[in-house]
Amino acid sequence: MTDVDEATLTARLMLSWLFEPGSKAVHFLVAKHGPQEALNRVLRGHVPEDLHGPAASRLQGEDPAAVAERLFADAYRLGVRIVVPESQDWPSTLDDLSRISVDTKKDRIERDTFPPHALWVRGTLPLMDLPSRAVSIVGARAASGYGLHMAADIAYGLSSRGWTVISGGAYGIDAAAHRGALAGTEFGGSTVAVLACGVDRPYPVAHQGLFEQIVQSGLLISEWPPGAHPYRNRFLIRNRVIAALSRGTVLVEASARSGARFTLRRARELGRPTMVVPGPATSANFIGNHEILRTEVTARLVTNAAQVIEDAGPMGEFAELARGPIRPFDHLSSVDQQLVDAAPRRDGALASQIAAEAGIGLREALAILPSLAVRGYLHRTADGRYCLLT
Amino acid sequence: MTDVDEATLTARLMLSWLFEPGSKAVHFLVAKHGPQEALNRVLRGHVPEDLHGPAASRLQGEDPAAVAERLFADAYRLGVRIVVPESQDWPSTLDDLSRISVDTKKDRIERDTFPPHALWVRGTLPLMDLPSRAVSIVGARAASGYGLHMAADIAYGLSSRGWTVISGGAYGIDAAAHRGALAGTEFGGSTVAVLACGVDRPYPVAHQGLFEQIVQSGLLISEWPPGAHPYRNRFLIRNRVIAALSRGTVLVEASARSGARFTLRRARELGRPTMVVPGPATSANFIGNHEILRTEVTARLVTNAAQVIEDAGPMGEFAELARGPIRPFDHLSSVDQQLVDAAPRRDGALASQIAAEAGIGLREALAILPSLAVRGYLHRTADGRYCLLT
Repeated sequence: MTDVDEATLTARLMLSWLFEPGSKAVHFLVAKHGPQEALNRVLRGHVPEDLHGPAASRLQGEDPAAVAERLFADAYRLGVRIVVPESQDWPSTLDDLSRISVDTKKDRIERDTFPPHALWVRGTLPLMDLPSRAVSIVGARAASGYGLHMAADIAYGLSSRGWTVISGGAYGIDAAAHRGALAGTEFGGSTVAVLACGVDRPYPVAHQGLFEQIVQSGLLISEWPPGAHPYRNRFLIRNRVIAALSRGTVLVEASARSGARFTLRRARELGRPTMVVPGPATSANFIGNHEILRTEVTARLVTNAAQVIEDAGPMGEFAELARGPIRPFDHLSSVDQQLVDAAPRRDGALASQIAAEAGIGLREALAILPSLAVRGYLHRTADGRYCLLT
Repeated sequence: MTDVDEATLTARLMLSWLFEPGSKAVHFLVAKHGPQEALNRVLRGHVPEDLHGPAASRLQGEDPAAVAERLFADAYRLGVRIVVPESQDWPSTLDDLSRISVDTKKDRIERDTFPPHALWVRGTLPLMDLPSRAVSIVGARAASGYGLHMAADIAYGLSSRGWTVISGGAYGIDAAAHRGALAGTEFGGSTVAVLACGVDRPYPVAHQGLFEQIVQSGLLISEWPPGAHPYRNRFLIRNRVIAALSRGTVLVEASARSGARFTLRRARELGRPTMVVPGPATSANFIGNHEILRTEVTARLVTNAAQVIEDAGPMGEFAELARGPIRPFDHLSSVDQQLVDAAPRRDGALASQIAAEAGIGLREALAILPSLAVRGYLHRTADGRYCLLT
């Protein structure tokens, strides 16, 4: 916090407390006047009703200075650092969110996709460098065993190659991704949970232990001040931060209506790689995955961490192509193969008989058959016939 | 057979007996001189060694007229009709095979992709109209239960909508596709097996019953005369006919090296839609599927027959988008949702409290809260407070 002057920090903090994050109107107010003057105007009521109304609702006559003091005290008490756009540690890729073209007539979720004013952060990992080597992994809460396995497997693969995994804090895919990533932290990776509530609030409560584990090597991040509740709406608004903090987003498991699809959409709007894990076509849990792979040209199918790095990483990190085992007949040309096919299993046949069966000229057959015998594909009998077995 | 003059028919038949199908050299010989003169030149030895050699191997001094007579007798005895490019019933889409651009330096499988000279056909279904409403379904012999289910399910969906399914005659995906299609024939569909051996040879033998069932409403087709053996090479050469006879090809299950990938490749070379079923990323059986979906821009993911018809069918037959069930909160705008989220479960809160918690102006909250109560999302207490439950 020390690298930002207190007035700016206080203004950002208050703006993030006064308004739900992502607001287009607040973003442009700050862009025009700077955070301090923007806050002054809000507090004096020199703003349009769509800004004045919400701010007045939140303040309800409270003294703004007292609120700010309380917020700083909360942060200090909870060991939370506050990162604002003016901080050196601010990840500049979050600012890309202001470039998503939005339809102002649409609902809040569609319209209010602008960058946060502040991030409340637990953990010591620098935020600034995060996006250069981080991939987000998202998916359903009620995930299948297969989906959980894939999330953990890809996350482990990323983490053990020194990448950071970013996800939410929910049951299912989110938790599996964090656990997979944590298993690989000894190789340099880490994991980051971006929450839709205060970083002091374990939600779900059962993840308290997981969150504490994440803070050891990674980060808990929220746009909301400590104490904020995880309202339904906030998850969708939060998703844009997950997308903007990562080089690319992997969707592991999503039914036709999963909120995780939103995160992938934000990644696409940001021009970041979008990746989707395939699953059984018979499962409703993967309808979202398959619909995206089917209809969105930019979405790329991935089955492992190496492919994710190929798609999201810096140029030149290519996953090995999947290859089957090399088999004995792989080194035969198709003419060779035709002759081998046409040879009887036992009781050798003459070269002319094999040539006729194979549909190959006798001269060519006579030139090739001895080499097939030398290479062990055929057996040549004492009287010059050929067969497969001795 | 009656619509083609006997000399042409005989010439085509002999050419198809003398040479393994797909040959580029034979194709251009016939294109230049017509089938009768092409055959004359072959029989008189007035052709280059790459044509003379194989033909001489096959003939071995036999009388060509006797061979032709035997081929006709076989066809008659087995109830097989012979369809050649000059037949009215010839499916013209097979001629598209001559337009695949090929690298002449490559191996036979890569080079010899030209149209057949004759098809040996069992079954009464007209061949000519086949390609306008046929889709091929291909995949591995050693298929998973899931793959078999998907092949049968898609084939049934196609057949019961009046489409024809085309496949090989192998165990696994081929057989599952035929069986699925047969289950839907009462609705106007049919199924066609394109074999890599004579149509009189059930290969594998266990499919004799299946093949007889196919012939009742569909077709058994081969480029090879009766008695021909199903050599390994012939499956790959045969695949181009499966691709060329259908509007599009669906790959259901393919490991990294499955021959079924060849059929899909031919479909792509022919400019026909290529479709791939997704599967579990944890199974080696689907590495081929996922590699294609990942790397080939034109391959489209499909999960059911309706999507196959959307991709391969005439314009305008669109599959319904997968949608989840409509839920109670679907009709709420995000501002509505914020207010509902912020309302306490019981012990009503004042509009101003809810507005503060939601981050929404009091005036807006006062305008919306009563309507949320009327619509049943919130309960309004006698003293004007709001909560979720009564």
